[in-house]
Amino acid sequence: MNIPIVRNILEANEKVAATLREKFAQKGILALNLISSPGAGKTSLLERTLQDLSGEFAMAVIEGDLQTDNDARRVAATGAQAVQINTEGGCHLDSNLVAAALENLDYDKIDVLFIENVGNLVCPVEFDCGEDAKVAILSVAEGDDKPEKYPLLFHMAGAMVLNKTDLLPHVDFDVQKAIKHARRLNRGLEVFEVSCRTGNGLENWYNWLRAMRAAKKQQAA
Amino acid sequence: MNIPIVRNILEANEKVAATLREKFAQKGILALNLISSPGAGKTSLLERTLQDLSGEFAMAVIEGDLQTDNDARRVAATGAQAVQINTEGGCHLDSNLVAAALENLDYDKIDVLFIENVGNLVCPVEFDCGEDAKVAILSVAEGDDKPEKYPLLFHMAGAMVLNKTDLLPHVDFDVQKAIKHARRLNRGLEVFEVSCRTGNGLENWYNWLRAMRAAKKQQAA
Repeated sequence: MNIPIVRNILEANEKVAATLREKFAQKGILALNLISSPGAGKTSLLERTLQDLSGEFAMAVIEGDLQTDNDARRVAATGAQAVQINTEGGCHLDSNLVAAALENLDYDKIDVLFIENVGNLVCPVEFDCGEDAKVAILSVAEGDDKPEKYPLLFHMAGAMVLNKTDLLPHVDFDVQKAIKHARRLNRGLEVFEVSCRTGNGLENWYNWLRAMRAAKKQQAA
Repeated sequence: MNIPIVRNILEANEKVAATLREKFAQKGILALNLISSPGAGKTSLLERTLQDLSGEFAMAVIEGDLQTDNDARRVAATGAQAVQINTEGGCHLDSNLVAAALENLDYDKIDVLFIENVGNLVCPVEFDCGEDAKVAILSVAEGDDKPEKYPLLFHMAGAMVLNKTDLLPHVDFDVQKAIKHARRLNRGLEVFEVSCRTGNGLENWYNWLRAMRAAKKQQAA
């Protein structure tokens, strides 16, 4: 008697992620997987980005939340295509959920796809969603010890956005210490110090997006 | 052929949690499970509490983190008993981990046991660790939408500590809205507005701890 066993839920996830990655490559879509603690500012970063770059790129957002469609409404208000995934208790997105959400988006009209994961510094990191890069968002209100305490995300991310820098005068957060720890885990990590409230530093983040998208487009051509 | 199947990882967890709960009841130990996002201030709340109540209670802390023993060092510096659990990637504590950690603590010298869970608003909520109550800690820097977006914790918690109120002038956070949403999920939820930085509001939290411990002691007698 042969009893089939799914040995590895991650392995199953990676198969679907590979087909997504291939699809994104064919279309030249830059796909980014945004991961952070709850309240670090993923949606605020998206709102600013979607507004400020609306003249340059066609952008779409897949929003992951346990409950509510608040975030999808926020990003859709900028005019971008948006789909909400409600995980109903699930602590992360996976490639199947992203594939299902994609069916609600118009592929041929996407230059940049943002996947806003469930607010969670741990579980989403292990589930590949076919993205070109994971982007870690860290709010300075969370403390400069987070890269050291939650190393996997910072090890795997292509970029770290250090958000809410307008709060630096009011919190104990050593920017250099946080960056040093993150780069110890990941030598090539790009770091952007930004405030989505004031707009400070966003231009560097935008330039990185431009360069990443240009590279993707060139590969597809 | 009979193939045994573990049907429910939560069921297995609950059996061990029940034995812990019985042990705590016999000894009159008040056990609290502290749950929050990374960086909401669980360890800072403990540092203040352990210092300020050291003359009243014998307190012990089980620290849960993916990596490092930074937090156990911080709380041990106050003179409290402390044990560190490193989950090495695991996104929550469970009753087995707590039972193993307890073997390193002197039971007869504990009035109040704090279990500081892994920083994660999602996964720890479902794993009973034998506690009398879960305590949700929410930083005002995280946004007033968190009870609505991560409802299970706020539904199940005995108390919510709204921390970092010293930052209120610098962030968009509607205290009444957050409390209203949390109490919609949980009518009896105790709420404490505190700043661990300035000490504001901590006395109300301490009074709750005193009342909870007194009730537990009486039940044990």
